[in-house]
Amino acid sequence: MAKDMSNLLQLTALELRDRMASGALSAAELAEAVIARVEAREAEVGAWAWFDAAYLREQAKRLDAHRISGRPIGPLHGLPVGLKDIIDTARIPTENGAAQDRGRVPERDAEIVRRLRAAGAIIAGKTVTTELAFMHPGKTRNPHAPTHTPGGSSQGSAAAVADGMVPLAVGTQTGGSVIRPASFCGVTGFKPSFGVVPRSGVLTQSPSLDTIGVFAADPLSAAMLTDVLAGGDPADPGSVDAPAPRLAATASEAPPLKPVFAMLRMPGWERVSEDMSAALGELSEALGDQAFSAELPAPFEAAAEVREQINFAEMAHHYAGYDPAHLSDETRAALETGQAVMASRYLAALDWKSRITGALDEIFLRCDAIICPSSPGAAPEGLGQTGDPVFNGLWTMAGTPAVSLPVLTSSGGLPMGLQLVGRRGNDGRLLRTARWLYDWIGGEGDSA
Amino acid sequence: MAKDMSNLLQLTALELRDRMASGALSAAELAEAVIARVEAREAEVGAWAWFDAAYLREQAKRLDAHRISGRPIGPLHGLPVGLKDIIDTARIPTENGAAQDRGRVPERDAEIVRRLRAAGAIIAGKTVTTELAFMHPGKTRNPHAPTHTPGGSSQGSAAAVADGMVPLAVGTQTGGSVIRPASFCGVTGFKPSFGVVPRSGVLTQSPSLDTIGVFAADPLSAAMLTDVLAGGDPADPGSVDAPAPRLAATASEAPPLKPVFAMLRMPGWERVSEDMSAALGELSEALGDQAFSAELPAPFEAAAEVREQINFAEMAHHYAGYDPAHLSDETRAALETGQAVMASRYLAALDWKSRITGALDEIFLRCDAIICPSSPGAAPEGLGQTGDPVFNGLWTMAGTPAVSLPVLTSSGGLPMGLQLVGRRGNDGRLLRTARWLYDWIGGEGDSA
Repeated sequence: MAKDMSNLLQLTALELRDRMASGALSAAELAEAVIARVEAREAEVGAWAWFDAAYLREQAKRLDAHRISGRPIGPLHGLPVGLKDIIDTARIPTENGAAQDRGRVPERDAEIVRRLRAAGAIIAGKTVTTELAFMHPGKTRNPHAPTHTPGGSSQGSAAAVADGMVPLAVGTQTGGSVIRPASFCGVTGFKPSFGVVPRSGVLTQSPSLDTIGVFAADPLSAAMLTDVLAGGDPADPGSVDAPAPRLAATASEAPPLKPVFAMLRMPGWERVSEDMSAALGELSEALGDQAFSAELPAPFEAAAEVREQINFAEMAHHYAGYDPAHLSDETRAALETGQAVMASRYLAALDWKSRITGALDEIFLRCDAIICPSSPGAAPEGLGQTGDPVFNGLWTMAGTPAVSLPVLTSSGGLPMGLQLVGRRGNDGRLLRTARWLYDWIGGEGDSA
Repeated sequence: MAKDMSNLLQLTALELRDRMASGALSAAELAEAVIARVEAREAEVGAWAWFDAAYLREQAKRLDAHRISGRPIGPLHGLPVGLKDIIDTARIPTENGAAQDRGRVPERDAEIVRRLRAAGAIIAGKTVTTELAFMHPGKTRNPHAPTHTPGGSSQGSAAAVADGMVPLAVGTQTGGSVIRPASFCGVTGFKPSFGVVPRSGVLTQSPSLDTIGVFAADPLSAAMLTDVLAGGDPADPGSVDAPAPRLAATASEAPPLKPVFAMLRMPGWERVSEDMSAALGELSEALGDQAFSAELPAPFEAAAEVREQINFAEMAHHYAGYDPAHLSDETRAALETGQAVMASRYLAALDWKSRITGALDEIFLRCDAIICPSSPGAAPEGLGQTGDPVFNGLWTMAGTPAVSLPVLTSSGGLPMGLQLVGRRGNDGRLLRTARWLYDWIGGEGDSA
């Protein structure tokens, strides 16, 4: 599909930012385009838990006045951002996808919302989440095929960006809740290293795993958004105090050497679809000596179960205030499993996190990034489930940065994501590598 | 007892340091005094798990040569320090008080041992610990009454300082393992705020609770030793990166106002001995309007059980490699209890730590320090147990700094400790207040 440069919502966030900065585009114009698109498409897509055109217009007006006054503008000036509805927004409902939280209105913005506002972003609205960011689906449909799942749990954020309703959105991943919906919806999803983006004011499911991530059309725009969200926060002891990561700047640079990729056969490989398998084979062939095959040592087979012990035990603790009678079967079953976890197993599971990092370091010595599927294949049909996170949980537990690139297509014409994984803490290098591969595949595609 | 200034080992560490710095005393002279005292008394006291006169002499010789060369000397130059035998020492046995670790010789020094050596301290030897720093006693006897317990688990460290074998020693507290033996043996014990002193290279029993502490004759000497041990360490994620606390300097200052104390009636008060109760009453009366009575809200009654959940669950995990067949009944029973803890209870127990801190802050708004007993009374008779830590666990869990001052005496003539507790992170202020009270009681005593 050729890009229609007259359609604002086909531009990347980066392109929009540049037009906004030059004065060629106003925040009000962009806000109107967003409102028109949401009005046209929301009935079919169902991406929004809360959306208020007047609230967008009001923010846009204020931002335009600010820019016209000649004062400096923030790095996301005028860009509308969708927020998963587990991220607290002051005086705006934040219902966590839970019946029990219907009508809940926080008094304070989450720390990342505060950072977005300070960067000049427009809070576009709250996007649909699965129930309590777990497995029970919300109302969102896949924009490419309305009878297929958009994935979960950040389903509204992924679908809103995929459908061109907003250029940027924020989600979270505890198992596979950023990378999987990005894969199914055909957008770039980025889950930074654990600790890069603070979580204060965001629903706590499992503090050892919960990770904020972002959605955008392309990796550079995802980097630009993450730059604004990143940075230590005393209110989140899991966050890491570090200098600004400058992800967008790093990702824009050319790699010093041609990147090398480890094509990783992950545990659960028997679930890979034929389409995905064929696509990976072609990619590997095209990359030639820039790719090599890799496997993980046998203990990794247990990683999924280990991650689940951590997730369910912590979830049972943090969701103890939710009445099981008002929860879905999926969530209730997980909480029951979590309540039955022994502390000794939980503590042993936590030890895995550092052991995994050590084992992965060996692979990262030999490559710039691991390549693996973002999901077994394209979005499965049916809205009663959110698809299979089999290739995501390991990276959440390891705390490594992971990005899903919208560069593959199934035989049925649906998007499939290619997942790139980097060494923990090397988010900029991973995004640089991802940007290189994204451009390289784009170039290959054009010449084909 | 009048101080014999000709007896080196009746001087405080601070006095010894000053003599050493002025050249009036050599490291070799002090080492010989230590060796002589240990040879005279060790058969009765049993404070040492490992002690080697030649090793002391060798260090002293090197330190004297260093000083004579005119190079700058460290803050603990020439001062012999005893180390609880769960603190790793390179090429020196570290047996953790466990049958299974007999003959264990680490290859590396613990971080705090590295810091001690860099400060010019002499590693005097390894002091007796209870089995795995839990409740099953080692061979140490109370220097004041050989049929009474010295307390636990840091029993050798407390007894060695109390008996004048060394001016300084290091221990650890997970329940009451610094403050209780300090109380029973009649020395100053100091447990800094959680995170002040790093634990890498020290046996891990319960990482949420394990705290390094020190023993000395007086609070200023304890502050001086802690200054050397303090500071963040990337290898201990529980340690806090912070500027040098300058505890000794702060503790030396006069309080800006007359200190005010909260005389706290702690949970477990029914176990307080008559002697202790009378002593606290007298103290309160003598302090007049510098003291007020305080109680803790009802939920604190559960704190001991909550602390035990954390301790036993983490202990079961970290001691999983110890064969129960080679452990004492006490340790084995605790491990069995710990194995049965549910993750949900464990996680709920961890939440208590921050809740406690909040509740205590209210008391600390009104006082400089809390006063409470270090132990219910003097050391009980019998070497088959280590006494009752009932007034210690709460402060370990809260992570507050606590000091035991050797200022009370039972009707039977045995020492009893007075415990002062400060706000978490305010270690310098607590030591300044403790030093003030220590001097004030000393003055009162002289005039009586």
